[in-house]
Amino acid sequence: MTPDYVAVQAEWSIDHALRHIRKKGKDSETINVIYVVDPSWKLIDALELRRFILAPMEQTVEQIMDHNFICIKALEDREEAVRMIQHYDLVALPVVDSEGVLLGTVTVDDVLDVAEEEATEDFHRVAAVAPLKMSYRESGFWSLYRKRIGWLAALIVVNMASGHVIARHEELLISSIALSFFIPLLIATGGNAGAQSATLMVRAIATGDLRADQWLWAVGKELLVGLGLGVTLGLATWFLGFYRGGFDMAVIIFLTMTAIVLVSNLIGVGLPFLLNRLNMDPAVASSPLITTVVDFVGLTIYFSIAVRIL
Amino acid sequence: MTPDYVAVQAEWSIDHALRHIRKKGKDSETINVIYVVDPSWKLIDALELRRFILAPMEQTVEQIMDHNFICIKALEDREEAVRMIQHYDLVALPVVDSEGVLLGTVTVDDVLDVAEEEATEDFHRVAAVAPLKMSYRESGFWSLYRKRIGWLAALIVVNMASGHVIARHEELLISSIALSFFIPLLIATGGNAGAQSATLMVRAIATGDLRADQWLWAVGKELLVGLGLGVTLGLATWFLGFYRGGFDMAVIIFLTMTAIVLVSNLIGVGLPFLLNRLNMDPAVASSPLITTVVDFVGLTIYFSIAVRIL
Repeated sequence: MTPDYVAVQAEWSIDHALRHIRKKGKDSETINVIYVVDPSWKLIDALELRRFILAPMEQTVEQIMDHNFICIKALEDREEAVRMIQHYDLVALPVVDSEGVLLGTVTVDDVLDVAEEEATEDFHRVAAVAPLKMSYRESGFWSLYRKRIGWLAALIVVNMASGHVIARHEELLISSIALSFFIPLLIATGGNAGAQSATLMVRAIATGDLRADQWLWAVGKELLVGLGLGVTLGLATWFLGFYRGGFDMAVIIFLTMTAIVLVSNLIGVGLPFLLNRLNMDPAVASSPLITTVVDFVGLTIYFSIAVRIL
Repeated sequence: MTPDYVAVQAEWSIDHALRHIRKKGKDSETINVIYVVDPSWKLIDALELRRFILAPMEQTVEQIMDHNFICIKALEDREEAVRMIQHYDLVALPVVDSEGVLLGTVTVDDVLDVAEEEATEDFHRVAAVAPLKMSYRESGFWSLYRKRIGWLAALIVVNMASGHVIARHEELLISSIALSFFIPLLIATGGNAGAQSATLMVRAIATGDLRADQWLWAVGKELLVGLGLGVTLGLATWFLGFYRGGFDMAVIIFLTMTAIVLVSNLIGVGLPFLLNRLNMDPAVASSPLITTVVDFVGLTIYFSIAVRIL
């Protein structure tokens, strides 16, 4: 935000206003938008400079006012400023206090940088990298190491749980070693599907495409999409199961693949909304977090089905 | 781009120019920037409207010109327009043909939308979703299904290769079933590290933070970071290996974890640059692609080390 703006009063003539703009304009960051304030400096209108240029000199500011303006409260989040400038195609967004008194203005070029920084932060979070304070180029070894080791180490705990699921079914695995061939295929595909839906949600929430209260609608949609993807991939891998381990194995692989893709998809769509509800950044539902959780859930599904059928 | 702009000639007085702006400005999308053209309509300067307002009426346009302007060729990519407007903090960017003749102007509010769309496309690509044509909210079942099934199915082929690596070591696995407990841990951690570095690169290339010719520098940096992360995580899982399978297993897990994280990290940093070199979008180096490739590479590393030690 910059406090260097030009404000005029409603009762001034256009000629008076333009002379004022000429005088004050040299010190202002932007005069593309001129603000109209009342004597107590409350914002009553925001007019583009072009309106002053295009109006007859003898009119008053009052006569060219449309009493139609967008402003933002000083305590709002900077992402909200980005959204408003973008949504209303503004050149500049006035900032007011709780009484409506004009404090300053945010220009669109500031906002473009903020939008890029926010997108970069979300990108990094989606890959389980804590947001870098500087650009990648400027970040040193220790900074990059610290921003990445946290999530990698935390996810190992979940990975250990996945290992335990395998360990618990040691005997089944030895008796049907073919089960182990499908482990990477099943859990990786589930993880991929979950990463897809999580990223779709994270971005849709960030851009305002989806609101928090639309979670149920999104879950319903992804239930269908997940089922469609799961059945398709289940059928595709049925043959692989048949080739490696006969009919029983083929059924296990088909059922597991369908279930894993469906469940992963729902985890992917649900987690960002849950995090949003908990006032956390939905982007924390990173691809690595989703794939790691899905590994655990997927193995549990796999062995539950295998135990029943074999 | 809009062809509705206002252009003036260098020899006009400010007074004449302002009268022209008043006349033409009503039909123009933006008069925040006024263009100065020569008689053959070649662009010779771009001046903010404020300069005309702030200048004495009797001066000529020539006198307030700085002969310093940024323009873009009509055939350039729209992402390049975003980058220029952002980098030079422009309100509007003039578009010229190969002769330098002014064709129109791109305003910053158009660019903000383009920047958001481009970031959304990259987000989706990074999660192996083919860019949606519409917003998520507007996309139907079939559209979402089609944009996702391609990569999921393609990655299954790589996953099958990972299964083959396990199948080839069937006997080793039966004799030391503990090896199977560590499969999710090792390949998931490698995949996570690779997804981190790939996303860091994709975003750094997209925002212009890293140039294509800086790949060797980035690989060198990630070699160090990957080694740091690998050794840390290797030591952390050493105990887990020791607990499950004794000293030999602990050594296998330590060596494998260090090697997998290091190699995954290098795949993650190298692939986006390679794709960029092949004139493909670096974002195709998605987290799912990286994790799936790393599964195969990781299992190969794991069994190579295990065969040698056990």
